[in-house]
Amino acid sequence: MTMGCPVGIGPELILKFFAGAASRAATAPVVVIGDPSVLAWCSRVLSIPARIVPWQPGEPVHPGVIAVHAPTASPFLDPQSLVWGRPDILTGKAMACWIETAVALALEGQVRGVVTCPITKKALCEAGYHFPGHTEMLASLCRSGNYAMMMAGDRLKVTLVTIHVPLARVPSALTSDKVVELIVMTGRSLRDDFAVPSPRLAVAALNPHAGESGLFGDEEERIIGPAIRRAAEEGWLVSGPYPPDTVFHKAAGGAFDAVVCMYHDQGLIPFKLLHFADGVNVTIGLPIVRTSVDHGTAYDIAGQGKADPSSLIAAVAMAGKIAANREINP
Amino acid sequence: MTMGCPVGIGPELILKFFAGAASRAATAPVVVIGDPSVLAWCSRVLSIPARIVPWQPGEPVHPGVIAVHAPTASPFLDPQSLVWGRPDILTGKAMACWIETAVALALEGQVRGVVTCPITKKALCEAGYHFPGHTEMLASLCRSGNYAMMMAGDRLKVTLVTIHVPLARVPSALTSDKVVELIVMTGRSLRDDFAVPSPRLAVAALNPHAGESGLFGDEEERIIGPAIRRAAEEGWLVSGPYPPDTVFHKAAGGAFDAVVCMYHDQGLIPFKLLHFADGVNVTIGLPIVRTSVDHGTAYDIAGQGKADPSSLIAAVAMAGKIAANREINP
Repeated sequence: MTMGCPVGIGPELILKFFAGAASRAATAPVVVIGDPSVLAWCSRVLSIPARIVPWQPGEPVHPGVIAVHAPTASPFLDPQSLVWGRPDILTGKAMACWIETAVALALEGQVRGVVTCPITKKALCEAGYHFPGHTEMLASLCRSGNYAMMMAGDRLKVTLVTIHVPLARVPSALTSDKVVELIVMTGRSLRDDFAVPSPRLAVAALNPHAGESGLFGDEEERIIGPAIRRAAEEGWLVSGPYPPDTVFHKAAGGAFDAVVCMYHDQGLIPFKLLHFADGVNVTIGLPIVRTSVDHGTAYDIAGQGKADPSSLIAAVAMAGKIAANREINP
Repeated sequence: MTMGCPVGIGPELILKFFAGAASRAATAPVVVIGDPSVLAWCSRVLSIPARIVPWQPGEPVHPGVIAVHAPTASPFLDPQSLVWGRPDILTGKAMACWIETAVALALEGQVRGVVTCPITKKALCEAGYHFPGHTEMLASLCRSGNYAMMMAGDRLKVTLVTIHVPLARVPSALTSDKVVELIVMTGRSLRDDFAVPSPRLAVAALNPHAGESGLFGDEEERIIGPAIRRAAEEGWLVSGPYPPDTVFHKAAGGAFDAVVCMYHDQGLIPFKLLHFADGVNVTIGLPIVRTSVDHGTAYDIAGQGKADPSSLIAAVAMAGKIAANREINP
């Protein structure tokens, strides 16, 4: 578990995670990659009791304590000089170092997976790491070019063909190749990570009423339909393109195991409506297991004791399940 | 209550409505504008008992019967020659005549509102009525140029700036004037139709993360933001543009009375997730009260007894409430 931005809600989430029943119920021991003095300071400020002990790779993890690995390369952070919600170059460098260390430990097999607390792209850039986001940095560290974001919950799982692009550029960013690739990646993740032997995949249309036979757009006929047929020929149980306003209701009702979506809000609107607090962001297609909270650093409430650890709890539980499923069928 | 397409699920919905407790609980007597022989035939075929009696405007409506007004202009339909799911010129003409009659009765004050069963645009066109849809025909009959569709349920109400356009054309179809107009229409409807004295209106952004300060699109800064400020200056409690993936969760939790949406699926995805069976389509801005089921003719299940009358029941209840609210504050 990486600590994320030290002046965001990450340290508070970690303290709440270990203070609650979730850490004892975790399927595997959890270690923190971060700064023990920042965590101790946060524990005092927020009055969340914590027994923090140093941990080195290979050592056992004892229950009832927070085992923290502080990489030697991590810059020294003086808790007295930190201001909630105000990241600087040092906090950015520390945060990036923790991610690098966690990925290295996972690639070496020292840990079974990585759960990340939130960072900001701004803080990352200021520290000299020029990635569009957290996921891209992880993929780069894994030297993986073929990965995708899945938002996963008990009732609904969605993947996104386009993510952080203006709505106006979504239609021109879609290609059949991208849709096929994501269908296959989604299917593989459901099979290998979520132990669904024959995943049933729905593909959402781009246009209202799935274009109503070309009346409201032709991307269904030109791009999405052909992609579904290609993926089906490869043996995947995939169907669509479905009218976007009803496919999520059907999926949440159990008709499909995941919905492949064309753009950010198409997938995130229904996902956050069903899984506002307990949603998990899973990076699929990577050689390592990686889950993340599905929210940001929440600088506006950092240090106030208001942060809800539900998504972190769900992310740890899901990483444990994915790791176990991958180890059964490696 | 208009019967809608006679070979769709409309007649079945009507029979189920009157056979259930909803008709007895209705705040006002309900009369059907349609064809009594089609309804009688449907009652026999589907074994749904019904006492069908003729009704003329001005006559009292007795409980326990289905009062049907058959306009003299309505063409003769032979139930024996009707085929489920196969509309023709005659069924189209009849269906259109029932809508015209219902609107005329409402404008004359003979009925307090109109609840419509589903029609298809195709059947309407074949009968010589060239409207993009049901709502446009009603607005034209009311000689109203300023109307909008609201999808309304207990947990969520949404209105749409653009409706049946390809996603690629949504950004260029947005103007500040249209957004202001819809904010004001939504606010007026909540105040007058739903008795919310000071409606709290949220406006959804177009782009993911509300554009993230121009990083993913500038429609928030160019179009939506200025529209919100203009509407606020007119005294409306309106805020936004909000990131689309969280605003519906907030609205459903009680933070807002309605969400003004930029495109069809932005509003319909969350609405149908929360109100799949009991959602109501309300036409706001018309001089008459008009609600509708939020689904189509469902030709694929017509005549099979499978149709769910929940949306019709909700539409009748909502029309009754809107009529009562308008009559208190005319």
